[in-house]
Amino acid sequence: MPNATNRQWKLAARPTGLITPDVLQLTESPVPTINDGQALARVKFLSIDPTMRVWMADIPQYMPPVQLGEVMRAFGLAEILESRHPDYKKGDKVMGLTGLQEFALITGKESRAFQKLPSIPFLSDTNFLGTLGINGLTAYFGLLEIGKPQAGETLVVSAAAGATGSIAGQIGKIHGCRVVGIAGSDEKCKWITDDLGFDAAINYKLPDWKEKLVAATPNGVDINFENVGGPIMQAVLDRMNLHGRVVLCGLISGYTRQDPALASFGQVLIKRLRVEGFIILDYTSKFMDAGQQLGMWKMMGKLKDKQTILKGLDKAPEAINMLFDGSNIGKLLIEL
Amino acid sequence: MPNATNRQWKLAARPTGLITPDVLQLTESPVPTINDGQALARVKFLSIDPTMRVWMADIPQYMPPVQLGEVMRAFGLAEILESRHPDYKKGDKVMGLTGLQEFALITGKESRAFQKLPSIPFLSDTNFLGTLGINGLTAYFGLLEIGKPQAGETLVVSAAAGATGSIAGQIGKIHGCRVVGIAGSDEKCKWITDDLGFDAAINYKLPDWKEKLVAATPNGVDINFENVGGPIMQAVLDRMNLHGRVVLCGLISGYTRQDPALASFGQVLIKRLRVEGFIILDYTSKFMDAGQQLGMWKMMGKLKDKQTILKGLDKAPEAINMLFDGSNIGKLLIEL
Repeated sequence: MPNATNRQWKLAARPTGLITPDVLQLTESPVPTINDGQALARVKFLSIDPTMRVWMADIPQYMPPVQLGEVMRAFGLAEILESRHPDYKKGDKVMGLTGLQEFALITGKESRAFQKLPSIPFLSDTNFLGTLGINGLTAYFGLLEIGKPQAGETLVVSAAAGATGSIAGQIGKIHGCRVVGIAGSDEKCKWITDDLGFDAAINYKLPDWKEKLVAATPNGVDINFENVGGPIMQAVLDRMNLHGRVVLCGLISGYTRQDPALASFGQVLIKRLRVEGFIILDYTSKFMDAGQQLGMWKMMGKLKDKQTILKGLDKAPEAINMLFDGSNIGKLLIEL
Repeated sequence: MPNATNRQWKLAARPTGLITPDVLQLTESPVPTINDGQALARVKFLSIDPTMRVWMADIPQYMPPVQLGEVMRAFGLAEILESRHPDYKKGDKVMGLTGLQEFALITGKESRAFQKLPSIPFLSDTNFLGTLGINGLTAYFGLLEIGKPQAGETLVVSAAAGATGSIAGQIGKIHGCRVVGIAGSDEKCKWITDDLGFDAAINYKLPDWKEKLVAATPNGVDINFENVGGPIMQAVLDRMNLHGRVVLCGLISGYTRQDPALASFGQVLIKRLRVEGFIILDYTSKFMDAGQQLGMWKMMGKLKDKQTILKGLDKAPEAINMLFDGSNIGKLLIEL
């Protein structure tokens, strides 16, 4: 691709809240030329995830924070344009940490992070960024390995209309749980109950949401799949049964605020709860089995999903903010 | 015991902070006469425990709160004076929930909660209220079942000079851990390092205690045996390693304040920690084995303890407050 331009979003300043115009800078550089052992990929879809906001912050975390001046880290789906790398050939579709840019250079070292997409009937490529990718695997391992659902138990999922929460709730239904979702609009609540089969949904923006949560969990709560933190987490903790399990998947309410995601550990003590944080990188040896199971459920119609797709790399900052103001539903993607 | 008087502390008002004079009322009533299936015991020692403050509060908890007008609940060690109960004879020593009073009536139903003391050489009766009783069992099950210590790991214990913390730290040493205690005075710190063999101790009342905690945990923290909550817990969470375990035994810093024991769940998420509350009632089937092990360690000199003994039932309110102002060291008892 001689003389072509690669547009890239670089981290220019660390955010203190939402993504303001000074945080990400859109720059242009030449599309890289490849050497032996490298491949060049054109990014087709970018996955917009809450964890990106964490990567922007200079705090201890599960991967190094993105450094100022670096291309912003992001998962994406890309197609190989040119290859001098033994694992890839022109036309291969791959997914991995492409970064928020139009072209990604895959080097020997980085290639471990790029997986070739399988071609499976009835499944679209973008499913591998969501239901069959990060979000599905997160829901699967979090709920099954930490939550350990039993038929008849009550599962509450926060951010239940999000890409991960919506799958966690459906896996709970597959395992025979009563599933209650917490989400931020009537539209989201309608989607997760009417289309996804949740037993109840609570719009936490209504003034009486706590009373509704109590009414929707008449037998208390056995498992909390927690994506939000703060007052929403506290309200669910207050409903938990003895020996309940809290799958600590995310604390999105705290990511854009200076105050941390405080909640009381008192309920954990009194009710002998188990609270456990996790990331799917802890379960890589089980990815294959989990992916097959998720794919099977998806093809059988037991896992439904929804995508919100914005067009164009320009939309990246706006898209990230949509995760925190609650305006997206399902999986949020940018199509290039 | 015709015509004798039983002095009793009854719960007269629910406390909002420390135990003020209106909370407990010292009353007198006749010593009960026994019927078939009952026994009368004279209380010799009362165990003063942080959980008593929880029992006084009308909040959800692992046992029903004490009701206003009831004799305040407490563990004690007593001697049978008269018995028409098949399990007890005059002179037997028993321990159980005697209540804050001089004489306890043991009925058929309550007798399940009163155990006869074994008579073991080198062990004093009061050990069965502390190191070989509630505190030892709490330290044992919390550390071994939830903390799962491995040789070479770092264990941090808060309220480390208390009856439970001091045993938890010593069990950590028996299992080959580096053990760091957090306590509230130089005297306590000296006791747990010089006498109990902790590797380091932090006096959290010194201004630079957080820096000292960092210096004392050069390899981070793998297990937190948490008795305190709030800022002390937060400081330990900040030092924890990936996949660390938090044994949530108590949150004493929050028991006498209106604000709950808040701390951030952020570290739990980022470091994939497991936080688990527990009470020893969950492990009753293993009490016998645990008690034998604790007794063996005690006789071998591997578990040392200290008792603070106040004289006279009058001292009960003052004694309870000593748990929260940090003025007692080791096991706190009242001798009648």
